[in-house]
Amino acid sequence: MKPTNDTLLRALLRQPTQYTPIWLMRQAGRYLPEYNATRRRAGSFMALAKSPQFATEVTLQPVERYPLDGAILFSDILTVPDAMGLGLHFVEGEGPKFERPVRDEAAVAALAAPDPEQSLRYVTDAVRSIRTALANRIPLIGFSGSPWTLACYMVEGGGSEDFHLVKSMLYTRPELLQRLLAVNVRAVTDYLNAQIRAGAQVVMIFDTWGGVLTDAAYRSFSLTTMRQVISGLLRQWDGERVPCIVFTKGGGLWLEDIAETGCDAVGVDWVVDLGQARARIGARCALQGNLDPAVLRAGSHATVQEARRVLDAFGPPRRPDGGVDGHVFNLGHGISQYTDPAVVDALVDTVHSYSRKLRA
Amino acid sequence: MKPTNDTLLRALLRQPTQYTPIWLMRQAGRYLPEYNATRRRAGSFMALAKSPQFATEVTLQPVERYPLDGAILFSDILTVPDAMGLGLHFVEGEGPKFERPVRDEAAVAALAAPDPEQSLRYVTDAVRSIRTALANRIPLIGFSGSPWTLACYMVEGGGSEDFHLVKSMLYTRPELLQRLLAVNVRAVTDYLNAQIRAGAQVVMIFDTWGGVLTDAAYRSFSLTTMRQVISGLLRQWDGERVPCIVFTKGGGLWLEDIAETGCDAVGVDWVVDLGQARARIGARCALQGNLDPAVLRAGSHATVQEARRVLDAFGPPRRPDGGVDGHVFNLGHGISQYTDPAVVDALVDTVHSYSRKLRA
Repeated sequence: MKPTNDTLLRALLRQPTQYTPIWLMRQAGRYLPEYNATRRRAGSFMALAKSPQFATEVTLQPVERYPLDGAILFSDILTVPDAMGLGLHFVEGEGPKFERPVRDEAAVAALAAPDPEQSLRYVTDAVRSIRTALANRIPLIGFSGSPWTLACYMVEGGGSEDFHLVKSMLYTRPELLQRLLAVNVRAVTDYLNAQIRAGAQVVMIFDTWGGVLTDAAYRSFSLTTMRQVISGLLRQWDGERVPCIVFTKGGGLWLEDIAETGCDAVGVDWVVDLGQARARIGARCALQGNLDPAVLRAGSHATVQEARRVLDAFGPPRRPDGGVDGHVFNLGHGISQYTDPAVVDALVDTVHSYSRKLRA
Repeated sequence: MKPTNDTLLRALLRQPTQYTPIWLMRQAGRYLPEYNATRRRAGSFMALAKSPQFATEVTLQPVERYPLDGAILFSDILTVPDAMGLGLHFVEGEGPKFERPVRDEAAVAALAAPDPEQSLRYVTDAVRSIRTALANRIPLIGFSGSPWTLACYMVEGGGSEDFHLVKSMLYTRPELLQRLLAVNVRAVTDYLNAQIRAGAQVVMIFDTWGGVLTDAAYRSFSLTTMRQVISGLLRQWDGERVPCIVFTKGGGLWLEDIAETGCDAVGVDWVVDLGQARARIGARCALQGNLDPAVLRAGSHATVQEARRVLDAFGPPRRPDGGVDGHVFNLGHGISQYTDPAVVDALVDTVHSYSRKLRA
């Protein structure tokens, strides 16, 4: 069933909308005092992410505060490797770590795609619970890390500055990395489909680390595996098309290639000019982006100006031939924890009002 | 006077060469045991950089060890803001810091471009000393940070993850940032010209942080100011053309624009396919790059394979019309301190021998 406000879905499917819909990557997060309060009650980030009740609460927080056009499941991209048994934990000040990183033949051979309705049940339960709480006002976006991005964490055992362990595997044992990625393709596909069955109305693949690869390696190890995921996705559920968004951070050179993965929309970071991105792929895919998240820390006035610049760069969605190109407003990366919540008010208001004017 | 081995100069000027010349960003550095020994004797990084004698010693080390086609002045991009009186110091484990960052009207008004033959005399003395030590075997490359990249450090007061202070100035006080950049343009131009007068035979502008900007901001704040620097450079010295290289890390989308700054060569990071880069700008500028520095940590075999892939991607320099395109082999970023020096042997040897074969 369509949500009451289906502007986001329409823009993703390149149908006419009355204004440009907006949601923000990491919109449920540490810049919101109510999020921090819930997190304190939960005790830890993972306790928060693994409780459908808490996850529902924080997913709804930005939606209650701002007239956003989409909600996004509160979760972490590392739930999948955690469900594979790698032992996810968080080290204060160092971010996520895996106890058992995947670095050799035996570790890859031992990997299996988890059954999401078993070991990731807390995620699908959260999706069901959030759908109930949203009461069909706006669509819910589910998500996963890309096979390559998950592999980065699985091999490095955590974050990395230069990804030299996973890149060493890539350069010396490409076939071993491909075996690992094949497990991830299966896992991500099953995970996203489970989210769709549970009620996610849009899915997004976060290819956070695709942009650290050479052109050749990006094609072989990230782009191809995302295409495989998309070809296995449920694209229709509950009588509706389920749009899929692909976001490779730092992927501005590859927009045409991403547009050919079978996705409905391409996320772009703030480096790319949105008008140029539209000229390149607007006839094939909707675009999502692309305000520099740093501008929000410069205050409301600067944020309003830059938001208008982004909307102007895309231009009115109506094409001269009468068709419509799709634009979903977002940041080019997750919102900073140091953002003033009042600036987000100004941003959402500007995107809605200014985009209505652009259509007039 | 031309150096005995002028292959690097010829490639930068798109003249025929017998093989592809190679040098490595940060080739005088911590991966070399002899560098670490000198650094211990100097006591600190800045003591090393500020002593013409030590700077000469470490500049020559990689050149004595490997048959490289160019030497690069050992120095730091922060010497210029240090000479402006901002108080550069290094905090263990945190990198460079400025005691007096430039964050307001008064601080910008107080800035002045230093006279390089006064406060940066240790750099020009090092250039003269290195030229003597090189005895004209290979050319010496001088360098500076770009006006924008220097501004990042000057405003942030050190390194940054999100550059929110300098971006706040950019978004809220663009005219103030432009005033700061105007000082940097003067300072960088004078600094590079002083290096040329002292004997630098090539100059390179490191725009390390241009790639964190939006397309519009890159054009206004980085590209324009680099063009201004280049228009003020001595292009002819001691009877020879002094080639200029511009390297914007993460600048793959802007290669055409960089090629129009007036530079002779464009540095490219490892994300860009070199064949595509050549197709885009090879008729106007030489290219420098672009091996992923991470591959060196994967060992000699992988490094040799990838180096060949880079050379194949560029292809033979001779064009079908009989003209020649220029390629200088390099990494897409500085060499890691964890690189095994033996791998660099294999790399230099492969670039020289395989590129000769490609020309045959």
